[in-house]
Amino acid sequence: MARTTSLSGFPEWLPEERIVEQHVLDELRRTFELHGFSSIETRAVETVEQLLRKGEIDKEVYGVSRLHQDEDEKTPREGALALHFDLTVPFARYVVENNGYLTFPFRRYQIQKVWRGERPQEGRAREFTQADIDVVGDGTLAFRYDVELALVMIEALSRLPIPPFVLRVNNRKLAEGFYRGIGLDDAPAVLREIDKLEKIGREAVIANLQANVGASAEQAASALDLASIRTEDTSFVEQVRALGVSNELLEEGLSELADVVGEAARRAPGKVNADLSIARGLDYYTGTVYETVLVGHEQLGSVCSGGRYESLASTGKKNFPGVGLSIGVTRLVTRILSQNMARPSRAVPSAVLVALNDDASWSAAQDVAGQLRARGIATEVAASPQKFGKQIRYAERRGIPFVWFSTVQEDGSVTHGVKDIRSGEQVTADPTAWQPPREDVHPTVQASETA
Amino acid sequence: MARTTSLSGFPEWLPEERIVEQHVLDELRRTFELHGFSSIETRAVETVEQLLRKGEIDKEVYGVSRLHQDEDEKTPREGALALHFDLTVPFARYVVENNGYLTFPFRRYQIQKVWRGERPQEGRAREFTQADIDVVGDGTLAFRYDVELALVMIEALSRLPIPPFVLRVNNRKLAEGFYRGIGLDDAPAVLREIDKLEKIGREAVIANLQANVGASAEQAASALDLASIRTEDTSFVEQVRALGVSNELLEEGLSELADVVGEAARRAPGKVNADLSIARGLDYYTGTVYETVLVGHEQLGSVCSGGRYESLASTGKKNFPGVGLSIGVTRLVTRILSQNMARPSRAVPSAVLVALNDDASWSAAQDVAGQLRARGIATEVAASPQKFGKQIRYAERRGIPFVWFSTVQEDGSVTHGVKDIRSGEQVTADPTAWQPPREDVHPTVQASETA
Repeated sequence: MARTTSLSGFPEWLPEERIVEQHVLDELRRTFELHGFSSIETRAVETVEQLLRKGEIDKEVYGVSRLHQDEDEKTPREGALALHFDLTVPFARYVVENNGYLTFPFRRYQIQKVWRGERPQEGRAREFTQADIDVVGDGTLAFRYDVELALVMIEALSRLPIPPFVLRVNNRKLAEGFYRGIGLDDAPAVLREIDKLEKIGREAVIANLQANVGASAEQAASALDLASIRTEDTSFVEQVRALGVSNELLEEGLSELADVVGEAARRAPGKVNADLSIARGLDYYTGTVYETVLVGHEQLGSVCSGGRYESLASTGKKNFPGVGLSIGVTRLVTRILSQNMARPSRAVPSAVLVALNDDASWSAAQDVAGQLRARGIATEVAASPQKFGKQIRYAERRGIPFVWFSTVQEDGSVTHGVKDIRSGEQVTADPTAWQPPREDVHPTVQASETA
Repeated sequence: MARTTSLSGFPEWLPEERIVEQHVLDELRRTFELHGFSSIETRAVETVEQLLRKGEIDKEVYGVSRLHQDEDEKTPREGALALHFDLTVPFARYVVENNGYLTFPFRRYQIQKVWRGERPQEGRAREFTQADIDVVGDGTLAFRYDVELALVMIEALSRLPIPPFVLRVNNRKLAEGFYRGIGLDDAPAVLREIDKLEKIGREAVIANLQANVGASAEQAASALDLASIRTEDTSFVEQVRALGVSNELLEEGLSELADVVGEAARRAPGKVNADLSIARGLDYYTGTVYETVLVGHEQLGSVCSGGRYESLASTGKKNFPGVGLSIGVTRLVTRILSQNMARPSRAVPSAVLVALNDDASWSAAQDVAGQLRARGIATEVAASPQKFGKQIRYAERRGIPFVWFSTVQEDGSVTHGVKDIRSGEQVTADPTAWQPPREDVHPTVQASETA
């Protein structure tokens, strides 16, 4: 399946690969709906103004304008349009615009493509699908949702044909409180340096903290000590306390993170880590932050990230806090396909090909097909009455497991038979009653042995 | 539900409206897969060169470029990108690029958004969803697929909560052969004038045919006579013959159209018309052409159109003929919603809200929710232990039909009860066994009485 697409960074799947992607999307949708999340979609474009409000990603944004617009429309201006680069900014706008029509706390999922003009590489495409869940409150939002959303995503990811994963959780209040407790007041600046830990290593980060944030060697070492704490349970609390820093915000963060990790560890042991090095780039997170790595594929980057924001959106009068997570569907599916982690049981939806005896039997064959479809069995009819061997080979090539034959007897009655072309076994069958084995009704997606 | 969206021509649905759209999309997908069509998606962007190959729609195309690209990238050039305006052009490119990986005849469906920079009005958005099916052959493609695809779309549309519809079918060979037979050789030019018949009326079209195509009054009248023929069965053949024109291509077209209309009339009486006025604007159709109107909503325009093209795509060596139809999903859904033709049984996926007795019971409530979800029952847990009356009102506001109560007895055992808040009836229930009535498991979409 190794193909190159004609436009770098814009992946397209073959039909059998699309079955894998569709399976992933179906499982996500099913999980989100089981947890009471409503589906919404937002338009692909936002105003440039709206998109750039949060800051420094303008280089990655694709502007959109009519090819033959007037000359004075040519430069980006207030009201100019661009493709959305995530689903959070559009969702925030949607909540503000429709808040009079929504019931809060509003639970929504949103599965759509987004676009970023970045340099393509594996795990980073220019067009890709994200699957987001968020809960948004009107004025306030219980902390409990920070716990719940982690559990929903653990359940969703557990249903996918992917390697074991770990959801790493941290808390901005914990980090910020700790930094303040040791005398470093510019928490975002510290976080930006800590965020590079996995890439550049401890010593380089310490040097950067001293050079860029004005930390002393001791402060820098202390910040790094915090970032080195990782536990699978709530024992991180003791480890932090052992660092001897005291601060009110730190306590609040410790308590929140212990709630998330404690509940998740109880319900999904081994799936969650408290990881005090997690920073997440985006500025709007204010409490819990999440990211998720596939074990053995850490260099792929996070496949599910998010956090709590005290102000996802606001109107003049109202503030809407929220908590949300986003799965990088294309990143996951690309990895599943490139490493053969899963494959579909067949390449097409069809379970049955109805063979043609002669040209005149096409309409009767459509009747048989209709009877099978009425019971949910995907069926095609051969287009021309080639020799049966050729019709069977067509089914084989397409991956259709069953071929249906109808024969008009001398007395004018019709007998039907269906052949499993994998085993060669043929049985007589009634088009109004025959059922394929359960596993053959639809293509299924199985994790490969090697995954 | 009458809202205005903040960007004209870019519709966005409320969660309960989205349930209706999702229902439409699910039914289409189900039908297409039952008929053996494989799902594919193509990237949202094509090269401008690729998009404009077919001609005169460049004013409607949205160009795409990185906001901060280099100055010399600013003007559209070879390799410049734009959003696709339909799914046919991208599909043709996909077939050419991947033809070595596909099995022909290749049956695919494709449900995606497309963009056109047109002036928005009802039935015409700037961003909208299309649902396409096509069958494409390698070198040749049996005519039979022209019949089959009409039947698939009739079945698909029949499953939607829309008014009765009529699929109108014509054939380019029939029209072109007839025009040649009366001495008018520029068939596309004649068709362009005939296409305006519904808008400007017979007299104006006759005048235009004389002025623009050089037709005599008699030729123009004869062309109009042909265009006035509409039948629900194959009797159009006799009516055409009665016009006394003889031409080989005309005969071929008559035979093909009779095949489509005859089979469709037999299988789906009243759903299909031979309509010899149908032209369809696009130049690449070469045989059968289809369009579909909702009865009583003809001014909405066609909701499902397409046709046969002898060359959908070609490489240097290979030619790929095809036949396909495209449903205007957004056009349909907009009409369904604006005229209240259908409504969802509830506004959210959740069937059950698990109430909280006190703050400590949240985790136990999650256990109950997990047991219900394991049997496919969408369930949310209340976020805070408000008075039961308040928790019930929250469920009411969201449209959740059942509220679950768990009570710890004096002996430490737990009893469960579930209340149907519509009737007020409450029964004891086992979280590992209780089932809501079938119609309450998922939100359903019913056609309204008035539709």
